[in-house]
Parts: sequence; structure tokens; C-alpha cells
Amino acid sequence: MRIAKAVITAASPKQRTLPLQCLIDRDGKEKSVLGILVEETLRAGVEDVGVVVAPGDEQAYARVVGDHAGRLHFIQQRDPLGYAHAVYCAREFVGEDSFLHLVGDHIAVSTVGKGCAQQLVETAETQDSSVSAVQPTRETLLVRYGTIGGQRVAGREGLYRIETVVEKPTPTEAEQRLVVSGLRAGHYLCFFGMHVLSSSVFRILEKLPGADGWRSVVFSQALAGLAAQEQYLALEIVGRRYDVGARYGLLTAQMALALSGSDRDTVLTELLELLAVRARGSAGK
Amino acid sequence: MRIAKAVITAASPKQRTLPLQCLIDRDGKEKSVLGILVEETLRAGVEDVGVVVAPGDEQAYARVVGDHAGRLHFIQQRDPLGYAHAVYCAREFVGEDSFLHLVGDHIAVSTVGKGCAQQLVETAETQDSSVSAVQPTRETLLVRYGTIGGQRVAGREGLYRIETVVEKPTPTEAEQRLVVSGLRAGHYLCFFGMHVLSSSVFRILEKLPGADGWRSVVFSQALAGLAAQEQYLALEIVGRRYDVGARYGLLTAQMALALSGSDRDTVLTELLELLAVRARGSAGK
Repeated sequence: MRIAKAVITAASPKQRTLPLQCLIDRDGKEKSVLGILVEETLRAGVEDVGVVVAPGDEQAYARVVGDHAGRLHFIQQRDPLGYAHAVYCAREFVGEDSFLHLVGDHIAVSTVGKGCAQQLVETAETQDSSVSAVQPTRETLLVRYGTIGGQRVAGREGLYRIETVVEKPTPTEAEQRLVVSGLRAGHYLCFFGMHVLSSSVFRILEKLPGADGWRSVVFSQALAGLAAQEQYLALEIVGRRYDVGARYGLLTAQMALALSGSDRDTVLTELLELLAVRARGSAGK
Repeated sequence: MRIAKAVITAASPKQRTLPLQCLIDRDGKEKSVLGILVEETLRAGVEDVGVVVAPGDEQAYARVVGDHAGRLHFIQQRDPLGYAHAVYCAREFVGEDSFLHLVGDHIAVSTVGKGCAQQLVETAETQDSSVSAVQPTRETLLVRYGTIGGQRVAGREGLYRIETVVEKPTPTEAEQRLVVSGLRAGHYLCFFGMHVLSSSVFRILEKLPGADGWRSVVFSQALAGLAAQEQYLALEIVGRRYDVGARYGLLTAQMALALSGSDRDTVLTELLELLAVRARGSAGK
């Protein structure tokens, strides 16, 4: 199994300018959020990147990925029918292959030499299996994430066989169905916004819309379906995800990138100066 | 004298996506850099805002200013002939009026209730004069700014009559020509990226291009010309400017906005948590 295609969803009406936002990456270069995501997939060995967009955003997006524009394939989501439908839009681009999927509003910052997507893709290729990236997450944050339950894979640190997927579980539900042995108390394995999925997911997705159509479909339902019908693993990523669509998400992601990169000292100095100025107030102009 | 028009220059080829970048303003609302600048001018009593743009950027810019789009008048700078020429492009929009001018790559954060542009416009209207915003700046930073020399206006704190304008002076040049009494040692009055100018500036500008054309014209030359022919004041703004086009400029501006706004505690907490995580490294996932 070889992962050569990636799908990035970036069509959410609320976040259409998000892929254009600029951050300074760990290598000290200024890049757009979309450019950082595309590079993350290329570093993992991907060759073609499908970007699901709202109609009309193609040109602006292509402009901000620089030299990588030739790798992009834009896939229109004509109507804003939600995230699950956005992934479904990529079925023709993906075909019968397994593919890497990144959500367009999260940035992954690896804390080791190997990129987060690269860690995930290597595991998927070795295990010949769908694998989702997960991160141990405090109980209080469960309201924001899809969460899994499962068993450790013997002899492979940080690898789990997924048995259950629940979108935004309550703490009670999590305690009853999603406890994973070996994690710190009150912590669960939540999605990281990064998956390697087999194309089965499209066949599962197409059966999900009921009378209410796509709007009531939650993507985690498709992942639960995947766990029920084939081997589906979860990998604890050595790194952290930052939700750049959240309030102060860009600020936090930029701080995280800067503090783990070559500009660490510069940025810390700038920050301390700023705190000192604010403390002095206008007298310190 | 009443200032009803503003000119924002945002056509620099290097910075065409800068006006689209999002920041959370002090009121806690997410806004584009351009939106923040437009609101700064409106708070100062301006009614019409001319935005100098590279051809083709109009639609994207209009989209990110929300409800204020009706106030905008786009002015094309057809060829990238530099900043002085960009201002000159606004001559027909401005006509014979005095106008407020903001550069598109700086954000001003007031440290008092009154906005920075509002402080400037009130002084211009009261004094019936061109006035540039200035900020006492350390000698080591002179390489980045236009700098003025002049005399304090008696009885008006922070107000100066401008006699000399020098673009990016050397420390020696500054010491010889630009010392202003009453400032801290080693500090000079540098431009803030915000001016109220009489329309004389256009007649001065049009005479400046020599054999090399507009590319060799520096805007400070026009301001020096203004000081030579009419009363031209400088006002120390109670606030700070942030160059969002500089490296980590958006990060610094966002920190400054957050630390002086209602989200101060939230952001400080987030920041400390991030520093703690980085300190623990990957062990602290």
C-alpha cells in the first residue's frame, strides 16, 4: 500500500479566507495556511493534492501555495452541505486508492524530526490499513472532537485498533465506552484532523444521508462505519494539532511554530518586550 | 478644516495578501487588517476611504471589510512604481481637501480611549494644519523610519512644528539635524505611518520624479517639501504602531491587541500553557 494522494477540505463558508492566512513556518519562511498543509502532505510522500473548495476560491488558493500549485487539483463543493459531504466530493479524485486526509483548519506541529503526516503515512503503509491520527486529550475538551475507543496493538507504542468512534461524547459516555488503558486518568484519544483512509469510506458515506440530506451527516459516523467493517487503526502522533479556525487559533499556532523553530529566541524576546511595554502602559511609549 | 476623506495605500506587490490577514481586534471581533484600518479612519470621522490597490485585488479586499464596503473607493496603481507614486494615485479622489493617510502595513493600537487616527484628526482640525503622527523611537531603529526634527509647540504637550524630514537617517545625521529637546537621550521622533496632509502634497509629489522616474522618489521627500512651504506639525500619538508587514509583525500586533483588550487574561493563560508544553517537549503531549 502506497499513499500518493491527499485530500484537504477547505470549503467551509465560515473559513474561506483561513487558507490564505500567513504564518511563519518552523523553517523561518512565510507561508499560507494552505501552503503549510500542502507541504505537510508532500513531506509524507504524497504526489497529488485534491483541495475541496467553494466555487470561486481556486485562483486565490493557487496563488498562495507558490511552487506547489502544479500539485493541486481543485474539487468544487457546489453547495455548503457540510464537512462529511466535502470529503465525499473527493471520491472521483481519489478513485480506489487509500488517501491521506487533512482538514483545512488545523495545523500539525511535529515535536520530532519526522512530520506528523509522515508518521501517519508510514504507519498506514507498514500496517496496510486505514489509520487516524489521535492525541490524548483532556475530558473537558471532548465537546470539540471525535473520540475513539479501542485496544493497544501489542508491541507497537502509540498504536491502537479502533473499536468505537463517537463524535463529541459527553464525559459520561466517554467513561462508559471510550476508556483506553494506559492513558493518563481523564484523558481520551481524540482525532487530530489527519487520517489515512481506504476508499471504502466513500461507499459508507454515500449511504449516510437520510431524509434530512447531507447536513445532518457527521463525518465520524463514516469512521465508525469503517471501524465496523475493516481493520482501522489509530496512531498517537508525536506532535500537536492547532485549530487555526478557533478564536486566537492563528496566534497560538504561530507561537507554537515560532517556539519550536529556529526563531525561538527572537520571538521570546519580542514577547517579553511587549509584555513589559503593556505593563508600563502609555508612559512607556 | 474638516477631514472627511482617508487614503490607505495597499498596492505593494510584496504585500498584496496582507490586507486580507485576520486579527482579533480589541473589541474581541475578528477582522481583516484592512477592516481594522478602515474602522480606524471611520472612528476619526472620515466618510470616504480611498484604497490604492494593484489591479485585480478590489473584489477580495471589498469582501473582507464587511459592512464598510460601501465606504470604499478603489484606486488602481496600474504599475508597481512604489509608495510615493501610490499616494500620488489618490490625487483625484482627494481633490482640494486635506486628507487622512494610513499605510496599509501598519496597525495602530491606542493606549487611551481615543483612537490613534482620532487623536491625529482632532489636532489637525483644531490647528488647521497638516499633522503627522510620530513616536519617540530608539536610535538603533532609525534605519527603518522617516524621522523629523523640529520645535515643541508651546503649551501643547506632544505637539511639534516640523522643520526637517529625513528618511532613514544615520545616527550621526540624526544627532546633527534631528535632536528634539525633551525626549529621552538617544530617542528621535519617527513617523507612525499615519498623516493628515493638505492637498499641496500632490503638487509637490508631481515635481519629484527625475530621470529615473517614480521608483527613485521617497515619500519623505514630499513631506520635507511640505515642511518647507507651509505649517506642518507632528503629534506624539498616545499608542503604538505595529508593522504587520515585518517578520512576525502579525504575531506581535495580535499579541498587542489581545493584551490591551478584553481577552487579556485568556490569551496570557493560553500563552503560558504553550510555553509550559514546549518546555516539557514531546513528553508532555
